[in-house]
Amino acid sequence: MTRVLYVLDLMGVAVFAISGVLAAAQAGMDWLGALVLASVTAIGGGTMRDLLLGRHPIFWVRDARYPWVILATAVATIVYVHHLPSPGLALLVADALGLALFAITGAQVAETVRHSPLITVMVGTMTGAGGGVIRDLLSGQVPLLLRGGFYASAAIGGIALYLLVQVAGLPRRHAFFLGLAAVFGLRMAAIAWDWHLPALTPPRSQWSHP
Amino acid sequence: MTRVLYVLDLMGVAVFAISGVLAAAQAGMDWLGALVLASVTAIGGGTMRDLLLGRHPIFWVRDARYPWVILATAVATIVYVHHLPSPGLALLVADALGLALFAITGAQVAETVRHSPLITVMVGTMTGAGGGVIRDLLSGQVPLLLRGGFYASAAIGGIALYLLVQVAGLPRRHAFFLGLAAVFGLRMAAIAWDWHLPALTPPRSQWSHP
Amino acid sequence: MTRVLYVLDLMGVAVFAISGVLAAAQAGMDWLGALVLASVTAIGGGTMRDLLLGRHPIFWVRDARYPWVILATAVATIVYVHHLPSPGLALLVADALGLALFAITGAQVAETVRHSPLITVMVGTMTGAGGGVIRDLLSGQVPLLLRGGFYASAAIGGIALYLLVQVAGLPRRHAFFLGLAAVFGLRMAAIAWDWHLPALTPPRSQWSHP
Repeated sequence: MTRVLYVLDLMGVAVFAISGVLAAAQAGMDWLGALVLASVTAIGGGTMRDLLLGRHPIFWVRDARYPWVILATAVATIVYVHHLPSPGLALLVADALGLALFAITGAQVAETVRHSPLITVMVGTMTGAGGGVIRDLLSGQVPLLLRGGFYASAAIGGIALYLLVQVAGLPRRHAFFLGLAAVFGLRMAAIAWDWHLPALTPPRSQWSHP
Repeated sequence: MTRVLYVLDLMGVAVFAISGVLAAAQAGMDWLGALVLASVTAIGGGTMRDLLLGRHPIFWVRDARYPWVILATAVATIVYVHHLPSPGLALLVADALGLALFAITGAQVAETVRHSPLITVMVGTMTGAGGGVIRDLLSGQVPLLLRGGFYASAAIGGIALYLLVQVAGLPRRHAFFLGLAAVFGLRMAAIAWDWHLPALTPPRSQWSHP
Repeated sequence: MTRVLYVLDLMGVAVFAISGVLAAAQAGMDWLGALVLASVTAIGGGTMRDLLLGRHPIFWVRDARYPWVILATAVATIVYVHHLPSPGLALLVADALGLALFAITGAQVAETVRHSPLITVMVGTMTGAGGGVIRDLLSGQVPLLLRGGFYASAAIGGIALYLLVQVAGLPRRHAFFLGLAAVFGLRMAAIAWDWHLPALTPPRSQWSHP
């Protein structure tokens, strides 16, 4: 079980590294920029989690297998991008799996530090979606997370389910898989049916605040 | 006294959460983006302070009342924004109060870790203005702090006064209220009379540095 | 020897503070924005290093001489910028020296925490180039680091050499100076002959990932 989780975790890191390289290609960066963007996307969320919870050493400092997986994946993706079209749907599926994994494992880590449902949801969502936010900032874009697409929403929904079914008496291990399935399912459904949250209407009078 | 400070602190968090929702509305984000922006604006400065000073658990991980206040305030603001015009002046006043509170309490926390006036000013200013900087970055704007408006300047002025009057022999408690009043007063005066610091003239010859 | 390193370190901080002020001038900020940008450029990389490695107190909290050097340098540069043309080449040389120093000393700090060559390269590069990335983000630009120019590449090359010659049996002290010279030399050569890494070709099919 722990071994399965570890392998899934490395897979999540690899998937996010791929998405970083693709973002770098889209932005016209060179291959070093691609390596940097792959790294921050893959380890950004988990690094925020460990820093905020005061867990040292940070997961990728403790276990150098994470950076090696990122390096290998990023180099392979850089080569791939030169020769073949973007994998499209396959990547979206893999990315949704990465989001689900990081969100629920992030929530579990938060629980070991502090028992508050709100903080568990916050830290879990940050672990899942934080790397993508840094990737977008470094690419010069408003994080897509903030512009809709039911990405963080899927993470929040799944973590909430993970917590609720435990309150209802389900063992933690089953809750884990339910939460995982919920994040993944919500994200896939959002892609399939183009789900969006309603936009806020802008405030009538301009208000500027430095 | 401590109780009053705690209530004022929660008020500061609430005010900054409101400013995050308004920025999200201005940028056309959905309500989840508004929640995220409200959270980073409200806890960003204090989180930087705690991380830089190595204080764990981070204030909002230790006391879950902070995230709950943010959640409640943000939801109320989201509903409000749909129906009523932006509160304008009232908010600017509340925001100046939040800045004053966070700057001076941030300075006091810094003092407990390290006795250096410059570091006290740096950490206090960061605590007061840091959340707004992250909010602007995530909204895709150059932080207004860097573009003028006498915002960080008000914080720096008030913290400097707070330190100076203590050197002059005033008890810490009185210095606290003087510093608070100075930040608030400077910021309000800057709004009323449109104070600005002089802009730098750009360097004559272009110099690019990667 | 340690004393020489300390002086070089303060010089590196000063050089990066200057580059922050120049970036602020280019972006039309006021003098407070220039101070802020000078500070984050000068201490950003080392702060990331200390946070990620869990080293407290952070270097500039422990030793207030760093902020004082930044303040003095930034004020002098602000005055200078009003009266004289940008120093151009001299600054590029000084900046390359700062990069070299921060990258190799950052690598050495990483080694004291964890013996993994990949992590040493990552943390060293981040220490050298991290401040500039934050400076560019706050100025509203895609970090130039990600757009080429052989900047991080020079740091990576020099740190790799520093590690390799130690594996080959050279004492650490000599490796230090070789690494330093390599980063500096690579960066200067990149400026002289306009070296660039190849850009990635964008992926054929658009792939959007929130």
